[in-house]
Amino acid sequence: MVAVTRAERVQQERAVRTREAILQAAAEVFDEYGFAGASITKIAERAGSTTGALYFHFKSKEGIALAVMRAQPSTIVPRLSSGGLQRLVDITLVWCWRLQRDPLLRAGVRLAVEQGAFGLQDDTSFREWAGIMEECLTEARAAGDLLDSVDAGEVAEFVVGACTGTQLHSQLTSGRTDLPDRVLRMWRYLLPGIATPEALSGIKLDLARGRVE
Amino acid sequence: MVAVTRAERVQQERAVRTREAILQAAAEVFDEYGFAGASITKIAERAGSTTGALYFHFKSKEGIALAVMRAQPSTIVPRLSSGGLQRLVDITLVWCWRLQRDPLLRAGVRLAVEQGAFGLQDDTSFREWAGIMEECLTEARAAGDLLDSVDAGEVAEFVVGACTGTQLHSQLTSGRTDLPDRVLRMWRYLLPGIATPEALSGIKLDLARGRVE
Repeated sequence: MVAVTRAERVQQERAVRTREAILQAAAEVFDEYGFAGASITKIAERAGSTTGALYFHFKSKEGIALAVMRAQPSTIVPRLSSGGLQRLVDITLVWCWRLQRDPLLRAGVRLAVEQGAFGLQDDTSFREWAGIMEECLTEARAAGDLLDSVDAGEVAEFVVGACTGTQLHSQLTSGRTDLPDRVLRMWRYLLPGIATPEALSGIKLDLARGRVE
Repeated sequence: MVAVTRAERVQQERAVRTREAILQAAAEVFDEYGFAGASITKIAERAGSTTGALYFHFKSKEGIALAVMRAQPSTIVPRLSSGGLQRLVDITLVWCWRLQRDPLLRAGVRLAVEQGAFGLQDDTSFREWAGIMEECLTEARAAGDLLDSVDAGEVAEFVVGACTGTQLHSQLTSGRTDLPDRVLRMWRYLLPGIATPEALSGIKLDLARGRVE
């Protein structure tokens, strides 16, 4: 066992806080300027940090962009309290709401969509979202809430893709103001093909469920 | 009535052919290099044309990108022969197949997804696709093939968003090789929420339907 001194612990905690501050600042800068317009200097200034600290924690601008993309689920999952199919729906409702007010989530989504334009090809955030949604569907299956024809992994992957594209469409058309309504419609048309009639009647499609701080 | 001389008609036809050649060349260059890596010079060279002709027809690189994005439906619609819900499904099957082999379609989709990275915000292609799909659904409604709860415009917009995001997901994960299977799954889960049981049993979910040259 390695003994950690108090000084080392303080240093580690400071490093974690610095990394968090840089990630948050980078998200704000990517959200405002996009990848091409975001410079390491701009991010360091926003974080009240040094470019040296940025390179220490993330190696490159691409490295920071990857970390921002991959931080998406951390902005949603701790805010959920339901289970099964309701949890699957609630993920998307919280996501709509948080997209309006959380730069870390917004930048993560923007970078994931636009990444091809700056030479990245990273499906980590898609796979993580699909994994989180598949867990909800597996729980729903155990509760007898899914139709026999449903494959949990397939539906999870479809919902991730559908939400991604619906978000882009909504962003181009209305600056995302109509995104919550579009997501509710998705569930109204999709749930009959995945939930049993009994489970369907119990699911709450209520935008207020997404409004968690 | 304005009389058009033979010389004028020949000149007009040549202008149309030049525009087409530039659009096709631009699509190939955007497809290979993305927006940032595509230069007017590179596009003119590929088209066997001059940069002057490019500026005459499209004003700017952004102008060419918009034209490529908006050309997407022209690569699909002339290849369709079915009607109603089957036509809606067939659009997506032809789209999957053509994405593998038509640079004009592939570049249009890529630019539409990545446009935020280079400062464009154009939802024209989304609106056109939604309009084309809404026509299919309106035809399906007239044939009694839709459930009463279905709003044709809502479903059309959802399918456009879902296909866009599914394409991006598939591109990141498998270079689009699994896109046809993902699209078939979309229909298996979505159709029960929009089609009557009788209509549903008649719809052919067969990838071979997309293989049109």
